[in-house]
Amino acid sequence: MTAPDRRSAAAIADAVNAGRISAVAVAEETLARAAAYDAVQPQIWISRASREQLLEQARAVDARIAAGEVLPLAGVPFAVKDNIDVEGFDTTAACPAFAYRPESSATVIERLTAAGALCIGKTNLDQFATGLVGTRSPYGIPRNASNLAYVSGGSSSGSSVAVAAGLVAFALGTDTAGSGRVPAAFNHLIGFKPTKGRWSTHGLVPACRTLDCITVFTDDTADARLVDQVVASFDPADPYSKQLADKPLRPARIGVPRRDQRVWFGDTESEFLYDRALENLARLGELVEVDLAPLLEAAQLLYGGPWVAERTAAVADMLADNPDAIDPTVRTIVEPGAEVSAVELFNGMYRLAEIKRHADLLWSDIDMLAFPTTGTTYRVSELLAAPVALNSNLGLYTNFVNLLDMAALAVPAGIRANATGFGITLIGPADTDRALLDVADAYLSVADLPLPPSLDLEGKMQTVKLAVVGAHLKDMPLHWQLTSRDAKFVGAFETAPTYRLYAMADSVPAKPALVHSEDGASIAVEVYELGVAEFGSFVVEVPAPLAIGTVTLADGSSVKGFVAEPRAMTGAEDITSLGGWRAFIARAA
Amino acid sequence: MTAPDRRSAAAIADAVNAGRISAVAVAEETLARAAAYDAVQPQIWISRASREQLLEQARAVDARIAAGEVLPLAGVPFAVKDNIDVEGFDTTAACPAFAYRPESSATVIERLTAAGALCIGKTNLDQFATGLVGTRSPYGIPRNASNLAYVSGGSSSGSSVAVAAGLVAFALGTDTAGSGRVPAAFNHLIGFKPTKGRWSTHGLVPACRTLDCITVFTDDTADARLVDQVVASFDPADPYSKQLADKPLRPARIGVPRRDQRVWFGDTESEFLYDRALENLARLGELVEVDLAPLLEAAQLLYGGPWVAERTAAVADMLADNPDAIDPTVRTIVEPGAEVSAVELFNGMYRLAEIKRHADLLWSDIDMLAFPTTGTTYRVSELLAAPVALNSNLGLYTNFVNLLDMAALAVPAGIRANATGFGITLIGPADTDRALLDVADAYLSVADLPLPPSLDLEGKMQTVKLAVVGAHLKDMPLHWQLTSRDAKFVGAFETAPTYRLYAMADSVPAKPALVHSEDGASIAVEVYELGVAEFGSFVVEVPAPLAIGTVTLADGSSVKGFVAEPRAMTGAEDITSLGGWRAFIARAA
Repeated sequence: MTAPDRRSAAAIADAVNAGRISAVAVAEETLARAAAYDAVQPQIWISRASREQLLEQARAVDARIAAGEVLPLAGVPFAVKDNIDVEGFDTTAACPAFAYRPESSATVIERLTAAGALCIGKTNLDQFATGLVGTRSPYGIPRNASNLAYVSGGSSSGSSVAVAAGLVAFALGTDTAGSGRVPAAFNHLIGFKPTKGRWSTHGLVPACRTLDCITVFTDDTADARLVDQVVASFDPADPYSKQLADKPLRPARIGVPRRDQRVWFGDTESEFLYDRALENLARLGELVEVDLAPLLEAAQLLYGGPWVAERTAAVADMLADNPDAIDPTVRTIVEPGAEVSAVELFNGMYRLAEIKRHADLLWSDIDMLAFPTTGTTYRVSELLAAPVALNSNLGLYTNFVNLLDMAALAVPAGIRANATGFGITLIGPADTDRALLDVADAYLSVADLPLPPSLDLEGKMQTVKLAVVGAHLKDMPLHWQLTSRDAKFVGAFETAPTYRLYAMADSVPAKPALVHSEDGASIAVEVYELGVAEFGSFVVEVPAPLAIGTVTLADGSSVKGFVAEPRAMTGAEDITSLGGWRAFIARAA
Repeated sequence: MTAPDRRSAAAIADAVNAGRISAVAVAEETLARAAAYDAVQPQIWISRASREQLLEQARAVDARIAAGEVLPLAGVPFAVKDNIDVEGFDTTAACPAFAYRPESSATVIERLTAAGALCIGKTNLDQFATGLVGTRSPYGIPRNASNLAYVSGGSSSGSSVAVAAGLVAFALGTDTAGSGRVPAAFNHLIGFKPTKGRWSTHGLVPACRTLDCITVFTDDTADARLVDQVVASFDPADPYSKQLADKPLRPARIGVPRRDQRVWFGDTESEFLYDRALENLARLGELVEVDLAPLLEAAQLLYGGPWVAERTAAVADMLADNPDAIDPTVRTIVEPGAEVSAVELFNGMYRLAEIKRHADLLWSDIDMLAFPTTGTTYRVSELLAAPVALNSNLGLYTNFVNLLDMAALAVPAGIRANATGFGITLIGPADTDRALLDVADAYLSVADLPLPPSLDLEGKMQTVKLAVVGAHLKDMPLHWQLTSRDAKFVGAFETAPTYRLYAMADSVPAKPALVHSEDGASIAVEVYELGVAEFGSFVVEVPAPLAIGTVTLADGSSVKGFVAEPRAMTGAEDITSLGGWRAFIARAA
């Protein structure tokens, strides 16, 4: 048996159908890969199939192959965002208090498993699929697979990382405002958001039920096509399901945002990569600048207008019975929806209908849109400091799509220096799903993009460990300079026995100076971990005579830490014998 | 010149195009007819074209014909419900405080006038198109053309009567919950409610903007077809407009309400006529009983659920600035909509989507529905006594149609003994509009219905004039027994000089007895007009020794009126010399 490319669903299915590898063997390998990545980001999962659960699925597939069946997804491992029901798993929507055990699988899951795919687990998400970031979950923050300091994007955070990390060949996400596209861009993936109604949403926890779509992340367009072939069909159990239709699309005229309306949030790299993408797209068709204003107005209805109440409707029971179980940021978003009146919603519907008419007419001037997927990306720490505003920035080019009944395909379009992905989204009128995949093929063949960067398995270049010794210790007056930078407490340690500690004269607030000395002692320190940018900004704020240097800990390892210029000792009191700053403060009090 | 059938738009247009009659001649004749009917029901109009206005239109048509044009509606007079903009007329929506002068005509009007039709005026309606009765307008109550005691149906009340009375060949109505169908049934007309989006609603005052349709009343299907041909088209100015589509429909399986679910509100005549209609329909296809429950649940969303807020949205400014200008019944309906939350509306939308899915699946079991248009009809006086409940009864079989995106065609199906019309509605999936007209032709050819009854020009059989002489006079203690029966004051008169008047002993409240006597005098009376049913119930309440007999007035005419048994004079005081009861009361005070 030769192992197929583990990133290609088509290759795995071919190998299993041809008997070159068994589904059981694929499952075993998948279990090993997932276990290995647990050392990096266990938080991309909310639940995982047990070994026995997975092997049982795989054995059933092997038996069907042995019986002569040919299955389009034979033995292909996949992951499922945890707002989609899968029999045998709880559905949590990233809210433990909301969790339930579904009686049956969502229609899309039934179709995938009938086609031979193996569900290996349920992935983390922004709670109730409310977010584009991945930071809004009590199950932890999935991070960008290529740079752990950055957000994975959301709300389908865990699913995107599961594919980017090569754990599964494809993963289901969902998309109401961009949740199936933003994480694709950040993680160098294809993000296929079908036309609403093409894929059944029966068995999906609603976010905005009139807008929700189930989506898929894949490494290439062939797999997106393959999954679509298996999943797309009319489902009478979903009132929003539609009869299948496939409209052609020739990218003769490609709409792009008017240059003066493009917004990059200061990210010149994204701007550069988008310009390069446009050069490549110009080889497929004529670029036509379009007015963003009406599209942005539609988007505004989603989070700034009456559609917020649709999210409120989805979590009404939780809001009434157990509001504290809701993520605080999600709650600030969904709670105000209860105050929106039906009259406001009707007025919003009328305005949306007008904008939709405008958008429909757009299709007589252009054949499709090619927009940036996002204008920039953010560090996790940045998101945590401004969780609503930065999230909104990420939705600028995605929010309007579902409201205006469009199909969308997020496609990689380059790599930032920090290894995160920049992407464009190809957008067409309803039912151009398959046609967009063809356009993506044409684009990718002319774009000649670099391979995705290697995975960030340690995050070591991206965070810095810092030993603090005085006013930055927990509960001390400057501790906030760490918390405001999302610093993570690593532990309380002692230095190597080679330091003396001084209480500086005239320092406000009172601060010590840690001074290396062979005639020294072990001094108590606390070690924190910060993002490099946060660390840099922290260093900027350190006043003389203190400085940030390197501090040796008792175990011989080195971390960055507070040191002092010599003048620090002028008039200072040697307090080395106290063993640490807390003892000095206690004595003074 | 020979006059064409004035009830047929096709015949008029043919004659004008062929030069057999001029549009000016048609206009003159129309003016005369309208003026004549003003003696019966001037309240069917809110405004009418001046003679000069109409003749100017007609001359322009004649000029176009003379120039060689052939116009599909050349010289055809029509009327327009006064919630549709027509240049040169105020639009009131039956609310004087709401009135405005539109800058341009609604799209449908532009198409009709371009086709040669002549707008003769704007018709009365239930205010803001909220009602199925015609009683909710400060411009008066249009009544059934065949029986003035009965409601015309609404909200397109005036338009239906204008056609039924033969004043115009067709008239535009609107339909949100049945307003274009109920008045058709009551007035023996075709009521064509196109699929939503087939006819532009640009220039329509919204009732429920997501559901509103413009409709037409005609005497035959040929005219409905002709108007549809002129009007139906995509209108970019209407965000709800759709590209034209015509789906075929063969009435092989005709859905009818399950027998145990049919509701007639005690009207056995309607039940009988519906059964007869079903016998005729059974000659076209197989009758299949369908479950009404989900359809009625959808209907419930309209007036009993969150869609009420859509009406509130439509009149929000009036409700805020000038609530007293709104009809009291309309106000009790639209005011509570302000309290409906967007969350409730979203939940309603989900439920509606489920029901719609159910309804869509219905179309695989049956090809069309043939429902009663209404289960019964009501007197104006009955409606006034219970304006909300009886109105709801009339919408039972019509309310669900627009919510579920169906096409509907109201067709006559018989005549009640009281001369009001009973009708059925043929209902098909979206875009079967033309096909339904063909089914109607087939039905009408087998049904062999009687001709519509003649117009009720006086209402004389239906109302009763009653002379009151004592405690029922205006401002007297029992006057409420008249007002509560919607009695109309005819005038203050004197009897023939052949009565004596007595103040009865021990009567509480004090009451007189009018006693015929050749040795008498003229006694002051007030004459009121009541519906026969109201009159009957009034008589029931008259206590001995009084009675209702016949009273001769000074002009020699006879009306019903209070008389007395002889015992009334026992111990009574003869007050004939005072000339009337008011003088007696004044003397006593």
